[in-house]
Amino acid sequence: MPFTYEYARPAVTVDCVVFGLDAEGLKVLLVERNLEPFKGRWALPGGFVHVDESVDAAARRELREETGLADVFLEQLYTFGAVDRDPRERVVSVAYYALVNLSDQPPAKAATDVRDARWFPVQKVTAKAPPLAFDHADILAVAWERLKGKVRYQPIGFELLPRKFTLSQLQRLYETVLGRPLDKRNFRKKILSMGLLVELDEVQQDVAHRAARLYRFDEARYLRLKKKGVDFEI
Amino acid sequence: MPFTYEYARPAVTVDCVVFGLDAEGLKVLLVERNLEPFKGRWALPGGFVHVDESVDAAARRELREETGLADVFLEQLYTFGAVDRDPRERVVSVAYYALVNLSDQPPAKAATDVRDARWFPVQKVTAKAPPLAFDHADILAVAWERLKGKVRYQPIGFELLPRKFTLSQLQRLYETVLGRPLDKRNFRKKILSMGLLVELDEVQQDVAHRAARLYRFDEARYLRLKKKGVDFEI
Repeated sequence: MPFTYEYARPAVTVDCVVFGLDAEGLKVLLVERNLEPFKGRWALPGGFVHVDESVDAAARRELREETGLADVFLEQLYTFGAVDRDPRERVVSVAYYALVNLSDQPPAKAATDVRDARWFPVQKVTAKAPPLAFDHADILAVAWERLKGKVRYQPIGFELLPRKFTLSQLQRLYETVLGRPLDKRNFRKKILSMGLLVELDEVQQDVAHRAARLYRFDEARYLRLKKKGVDFEI
Repeated sequence: MPFTYEYARPAVTVDCVVFGLDAEGLKVLLVERNLEPFKGRWALPGGFVHVDESVDAAARRELREETGLADVFLEQLYTFGAVDRDPRERVVSVAYYALVNLSDQPPAKAATDVRDARWFPVQKVTAKAPPLAFDHADILAVAWERLKGKVRYQPIGFELLPRKFTLSQLQRLYETVLGRPLDKRNFRKKILSMGLLVELDEVQQDVAHRAARLYRFDEARYLRLKKKGVDFEI
């Protein structure tokens, strides 16, 4: 049954940039398109927003349907509203970004509409030929910038780590996201002075080298400090 | 001529939160609706996105048509995509926020669709009865939070000031946006140590008290430092 409106309407879609961290570095989850346009090209998971679901719900549904991912940290990124971003028709896309800890996740699996779902190193994707479908390379670039900005002011990066982690793992996370090395002593001093880590009475298991101390993130304390505006700096 | 689609589509709108600063404090620009729903209520300026214009262009057009404002600093804020946010039908709204220096602006003037356009103190609007139309109070709250967050890490607040300003004016801007007093000595030390202000060879004109030194914002230097990642903090 067709739907009729007095004025022409853009279609509304969602696109999800999912970042994951593993021993090799920062990854992004892409799907191989099974439909035109851009059939056979890699793209961000996403699709059309149904008229009876919220935009947030559509992002979660598409991510689950196309990649099997559920219950992830997901935030709205930006809405891409240029007139010609889809060759078929006018499409406004609300982009989201998600952070997952790859060691906790089952491997990505393709479902509905897509041929394959796979993790790619972020740095390689931006140099990839042929490029991503639609304006998805631009969306990925905006998401990466947002991630770089966020980790500096919010403990958002903890979503990328296992629940218990070493200070070396935490430093590698920051270095990977920011794309540059950090001084070990300065890093530890700064991160411990924030008072957001709980030192656990446990050390790493199954490591060849000397086992390092494990920590966890103190989210309750973070929320209290944030409410008080403690991290204020002009 | 009606437009027909295979699947039902949400309408797409834009809404603009325009902040201004004057001697009385932080203001927001509202329009009085002339149409149902919420006829006679105050609302954010905005309207439907045309199918042949970008979402950004729609925000600029609606702002100009409804309030006479043009050439302002305008950034995308967030997309509001709940299912029931408009009583008529499904509407997804892309919200923007703008910053203007009220002393440079002609008074707001109402045009198309709206009865009146007027500046209101932000703090009063949130307590206003009857409340704003639609979910516009929520959009305003998100915009104010964004503004508070942004001024701490980006020199975005300069958009609210005249091109030449005193350090007292700059401090009042921060105090007004953040909603709390700042220590004068600490504030001056921090703000001058950033190296983003150019001291001018001019003082205030037409003031009863001792005329204060004028400064301007060094945007070129800000962009250079930002590129180098100078303001990095974990």
